[in-house]
Amino acid sequence: MKIPEVLLIEVEHAPGNLAKVLGAVGEAGHTVEGLEAVSRRQNKTTWELTLEIDADACTDVFERINSVPVATLLGRSDRVFTRHAGGKIKTVGRHDITNQQYLRDVYTPGVARVCLAIRDEPAKAHDYTAIGNTVAIVTDGTAILGLGDIGAVAGMPVMEGKAALFSQLAGVSGVPILLDTKDPEQIIETVMRIAPTFGAIQLEDIAAPGCFDIEARLVERLDIPVLHDDQHGTATVVLAALITATDRAGVELGSATIGQIGLGAAGLGIVRLLRAYGVGRLLGSDLRETALARLEAIGGERSTLEGIMGEADVVIATTGVRGLIKPEMVRAGQVILALTNPDPEIEPGDALARGAAFAADGKNVNNVLAFPGLFRGALDAGAKRFTDAMLIAAARTIAAATDERTLVPTPLDENVHRAVAGAVHEAAVEGGEPIFMPGHG
Amino acid sequence: MKIPEVLLIEVEHAPGNLAKVLGAVGEAGHTVEGLEAVSRRQNKTTWELTLEIDADACTDVFERINSVPVATLLGRSDRVFTRHAGGKIKTVGRHDITNQQYLRDVYTPGVARVCLAIRDEPAKAHDYTAIGNTVAIVTDGTAILGLGDIGAVAGMPVMEGKAALFSQLAGVSGVPILLDTKDPEQIIETVMRIAPTFGAIQLEDIAAPGCFDIEARLVERLDIPVLHDDQHGTATVVLAALITATDRAGVELGSATIGQIGLGAAGLGIVRLLRAYGVGRLLGSDLRETALARLEAIGGERSTLEGIMGEADVVIATTGVRGLIKPEMVRAGQVILALTNPDPEIEPGDALARGAAFAADGKNVNNVLAFPGLFRGALDAGAKRFTDAMLIAAARTIAAATDERTLVPTPLDENVHRAVAGAVHEAAVEGGEPIFMPGHG
Repeated sequence: MKIPEVLLIEVEHAPGNLAKVLGAVGEAGHTVEGLEAVSRRQNKTTWELTLEIDADACTDVFERINSVPVATLLGRSDRVFTRHAGGKIKTVGRHDITNQQYLRDVYTPGVARVCLAIRDEPAKAHDYTAIGNTVAIVTDGTAILGLGDIGAVAGMPVMEGKAALFSQLAGVSGVPILLDTKDPEQIIETVMRIAPTFGAIQLEDIAAPGCFDIEARLVERLDIPVLHDDQHGTATVVLAALITATDRAGVELGSATIGQIGLGAAGLGIVRLLRAYGVGRLLGSDLRETALARLEAIGGERSTLEGIMGEADVVIATTGVRGLIKPEMVRAGQVILALTNPDPEIEPGDALARGAAFAADGKNVNNVLAFPGLFRGALDAGAKRFTDAMLIAAARTIAAATDERTLVPTPLDENVHRAVAGAVHEAAVEGGEPIFMPGHG
Repeated sequence: MKIPEVLLIEVEHAPGNLAKVLGAVGEAGHTVEGLEAVSRRQNKTTWELTLEIDADACTDVFERINSVPVATLLGRSDRVFTRHAGGKIKTVGRHDITNQQYLRDVYTPGVARVCLAIRDEPAKAHDYTAIGNTVAIVTDGTAILGLGDIGAVAGMPVMEGKAALFSQLAGVSGVPILLDTKDPEQIIETVMRIAPTFGAIQLEDIAAPGCFDIEARLVERLDIPVLHDDQHGTATVVLAALITATDRAGVELGSATIGQIGLGAAGLGIVRLLRAYGVGRLLGSDLRETALARLEAIGGERSTLEGIMGEADVVIATTGVRGLIKPEMVRAGQVILALTNPDPEIEPGDALARGAAFAADGKNVNNVLAFPGLFRGALDAGAKRFTDAMLIAAARTIAAATDERTLVPTPLDENVHRAVAGAVHEAAVEGGEPIFMPGHG
């Protein structure tokens, strides 16, 4: 997996020199992800260069940079680590406790009055506690990003990132819960036991196939919304991207044949949501028989990479395999979303060169576009479940907020999240069936 | 149990009128806890009057106020509820995510670098996540304040109050965890399973005797500090008060006979800590045989109310029973801390009139003086356990910060908490035996 490398490079401050450094990086086959001048002294500038590369490619790029006569590689920047120092989240009081009387109102003895009011009328907990605004972000650490089973504690930076984005983009309080068990029964049991604390549960980076059963049983047993983000958050953003892409390509989703290559949590979530959205035919391919069985259980047809490329009007790939789709497989008029990051199954340019009507990679297809508004809307509506109508409302809203030049909107635009929350709230009030991922056994 | 009533009373704005209203309240036997002018129109002022009274005393006081010709009772103020609206805490990001590059550093893809660093070296979680600054505030709802088993959700306002105070007074992130089980085995198991999320565990308002075993086993099994606040937080503040009180009365704790009346979680915690502190003799009384057996297991001698009043140089009462100690039981020269709130076992004035060397009630003896600094110090030191040395260091620091006129300092003084944290940190580094409450079986 490629991860960011942030390098500090000192370059003589004269015309053409920076281009030479970036030229060397380009020759090594790496794209510049970010570049910032961080200091200048005398005639030298220090640049902070962000790349996304495999660990074993570092030596090569380091040597190439040092071989540029006007440049010196000073080392790695600790920018990413600095931005994580001390953690990314904290719990704070919503108001300052400014004096003794205030203390006596919000702590003993005054708090007793609120406790008794909730005891007598449990629904008041929604008005007088933070429960209704708080979402547990639960992981067992088995599928952290694309890194696999690295453990829940090593996954904490991801959970804190979610919580920070929840707060900033939707005013939701996210509370990471790192589980010291990978046993689905124990995960379900533990989440049930702490559930009274929360207004909703976000399951995060839990590996397939365990994630399907864990989610289904928690949805069934709990009276608050439960969502496995890797399935449904991702599916929501992909549906938004697909609405935009097919619209631009002039393809009718209602009668199209869609092929999903890769049936992990994300792929199956996408197929499930597309089916609920109403598309013509759904083909899927995966190397694992269990994944194919699950595909059929949710109404898809099993196919292969070649079958999908030969038949589908719209191709979605979430395989994690760079370059899996060869340019010669592409048919004229296809819509192709090759979503594996950072290296897609096929470069959009290559697909377009072979006559694809539309092609994009997954660089901006990030579930942060969906989850803050999904949960904000569900909490505001007092929803007991997420429904397909809520996910589809979110996807349509994201698609509608997209400008002409991009596939999806920028995720830091708070207006987008506000609009998504509103649409989800409305869809929640209208009701509908809870999201449901049937088993295959 | 007495709880606050905040009344809105309209009074004609003229000399002597407010005194008449307060006179009526006084005749009803109630002390004014707070009074504020909240509005004035024409010749009438609306006062917000805070009392602490039993629910069944309300009708009487309402009638008395209305019988004052210049006053009208408008009703109850919703001030306490307003201050709880929407809950008292929230999770926020520690820094704003201001642009796309920042997002890519703290969320995907940059976050992967931090995740991998923690996978390779787990101790880095302390530097790059919020875990080391986060304390779970865990309750099963079985002993919320003096209200008993009202359920965890009804106890949430207390847990949020703790979390808000943690943040304001010590910069600690408190995370309430409301358990949907009262079974000690399940409580232990659940806390163990979510423990990786936290730097320490505060057990809160869990009923005796279950609380003793739950704490002892979690202390034994977890590698992070675990503290049952109702035992040890309370004991710490009581020890501080006792150091101050005996100092003023000229009593030597090292050779004194101490009597603890009431052996619930707080009472047993006090006896245990006093024993570690080093006092002469420790007597205890309680109506429950199991509590007396536990007293003996921690090195106290069983006695009775009369026995303690006849023998002890220092008497501490935490029984919940108003007026339990009759003035004629008091012996000259005794130090008496009658700590039940809001109505003590004996009014300090009555005890002093009978020759007590020092007497106080529990109005200001609040464990909020201890827990923020105890946890801040333990987290800062990277302590794996709380020790008696840490509790005693906290108690001494609180006592040292007390001014001449009060028994303990004001809890909103951040300097006190900073000093407590520093002393606890130092004591933690020096080591010592973990706190331990032996069973009686």
